Amino acid sequence: MSEDKISMNHGAGGEVMANLISSAVLDNITKKSVNGGISLDALDDGATIPIGDYEIVVTTDGHTIDPLFFPGGDIGRISAAGTINDVSVMGAKPLAISNAIIMQEGFPIADLDRIMKSLNETCEEVDVAVITGDTKVMEQGKIDGIVMVTTGIGIAKKGEIVRDSTLEVGDKIIVTGSLGDHGMSLMSFREGFGFETDLKSDTAPMWNVVKKALDVGGVTAMKDPTRGGFANAINEMASKSGKGVLLHQEAIPIKKEVHAVSEMLGIDPFEVANEGKVVMGVKADKAEEVLEAIKTEEYGKDAAIIGEVIEGDYVVVETPIGGERILEAPIADPVPRVC
Amino acid sequence: MSEDKISMNHGAGGEVMANLISSAVLDNITKKSVNGGISLDALDDGATIPIGDYEIVVTTDGHTIDPLFFPGGDIGRISAAGTINDVSVMGAKPLAISNAIIMQEGFPIADLDRIMKSLNETCEEVDVAVITGDTKVMEQGKIDGIVMVTTGIGIAKKGEIVRDSTLEVGDKIIVTGSLGDHGMSLMSFREGFGFETDLKSDTAPMWNVVKKALDVGGVTAMKDPTRGGFANAINEMASKSGKGVLLHQEAIPIKKEVHAVSEMLGIDPFEVANEGKVVMGVKADKAEEVLEAIKTEEYGKDAAIIGEVIEGDYVVVETPIGGERILEAPIADPVPRVC
Repeated sequence: MSEDKISMNHGAGGEVMANLISSAVLDNITKKSVNGGISLDALDDGATIPIGDYEIVVTTDGHTIDPLFFPGGDIGRISAAGTINDVSVMGAKPLAISNAIIMQEGFPIADLDRIMKSLNETCEEVDVAVITGDTKVMEQGKIDGIVMVTTGIGIAKKGEIVRDSTLEVGDKIIVTGSLGDHGMSLMSFREGFGFETDLKSDTAPMWNVVKKALDVGGVTAMKDPTRGGFANAINEMASKSGKGVLLHQEAIPIKKEVHAVSEMLGIDPFEVANEGKVVMGVKADKAEEVLEAIKTEEYGKDAAIIGEVIEGDYVVVETPIGGERILEAPIADPVPRVC
Repeated sequence: MSEDKISMNHGAGGEVMANLISSAVLDNITKKSVNGGISLDALDDGATIPIGDYEIVVTTDGHTIDPLFFPGGDIGRISAAGTINDVSVMGAKPLAISNAIIMQEGFPIADLDRIMKSLNETCEEVDVAVITGDTKVMEQGKIDGIVMVTTGIGIAKKGEIVRDSTLEVGDKIIVTGSLGDHGMSLMSFREGFGFETDLKSDTAPMWNVVKKALDVGGVTAMKDPTRGGFANAINEMASKSGKGVLLHQEAIPIKKEVHAVSEMLGIDPFEVANEGKVVMGVKADKAEEVLEAIKTEEYGKDAAIIGEVIEGDYVVVETPIGGERILEAPIADPVPRVC
């Protein structure tokens, strides 16, 4: 190993992290799948366990955010939504989450109460149960604030699981709404703009939107663009699928406020986390119908077709005047952790 | 609420904690079960989701131990074993775990490697897969060392789930081995006896032992005596079942070294955690057969019948000279966190 200590880059969702996970975690595990289900090695949004006529989807996410409360959400909402979304983008109906809480001695009970209410409201939006959990308290100095780890359990009929690695040439790429809202609003909040801008996090449970798309049919691949942002998600989908992607810059929805903060802070809105968005590949002849279905949902009303899958090895963005640039996955976190 | 900040007692597995969980967590959750499965409210070792002819068992545990490495185990072994055991005592075959790692910047990669190898070896003993996970890194000062949260997924045929609340009068109580080894060895290690005593943690995956008992039949209730120790487990089983328990002190296996450390430190071995033990209620006419089956397994070789279920509201310990004392559940943690 080239380094002997964990650095912040190791937790940032880019390539440095992928290498660490591979050597210290994946290489040490002997059995990584059950009954031929999707395994740990796939590094998809979750794994699956085939049981009878069904596949059970399992996903896990640790939430270490700062601040705990932010415009548009809090650690409770982001924990529930993040896990629900990881299950949803596998094409599975989210049924339940478990919730482990690790907090410091002295943590305000009123804050815990507010966080749990928010987690509950997020689950209620998509009829998800909280079926089990654990609560641990650490001494002052051992942990700062509160950390939550949520695991999601979902279900799909056998053969209906959607991967992040199955884009096909000709598929249209759809995003369910504007990009960069979560990451940029948190950056803006931290930089002291507070709650005064109109910008807020998009944190939301996306199952109702995903279900609309699945009901139409033709969805070939899905991913939620969280850590590493849209740039990471689309590159991962493309490279795992062995395809290229051509994006049309003017078609990609980005809010004015996000553009403004992005320019002010010098941060690419494609590289920051979204917590209420899904990126989909959809067969060309179904794309318009899927788009219309998605747009009937509140969390999908700004959805757009932004490009298509092509032969090739890169994700390329075409500008309105015909220029092209390669959109690369961030190598390490461009910004402090916001998801 | 009578207090406005979380104290260490809130995380200690006793009554103070039960009250906190109830008000800040349970009361805020609307939907606590899926398809009529075992719910969050049951506060059993896990929850269940009925699917077709099966019940899926889901359990979650956060591991915040100090030290990370100790005689007989480490945070990797305890994370895997603890979760495997929570699934097993529900009467379900453990299939897979997910593993979320939260660690500080600067954490030694060699330690992470050692922890993951240990977690893997523990899973291998009972053929459990590690199917998904998450890795987060926090800045120095935000977390001390490493915390792991594991979720276990198991499966049982419908109707075969075992609860912790279904003891019946006349059932024999079996423990699968000596009590107090884990907690007392950690206390001893922390007090500076180091690795020099023979005492070590019992941390082990108990599925093979549990399976032997289930194959014989007659198991009415199970629980693993972790946080709060045997005193907490047996009281929880008794009170949830609405029964009393009569224990025979001389029949309860406790190692000499555990007794010695217990007297030196003034800590009750019944109140400290075990990480490789199961407490069972077994129908009287099956108890001897279950005991013999368990004893064929390495982790069950010191198993014993230690008492029986009676009418009543208390857990009573009968001494060899005919005296009786009530064994109460610890109100708060008698010792620093060791599980």
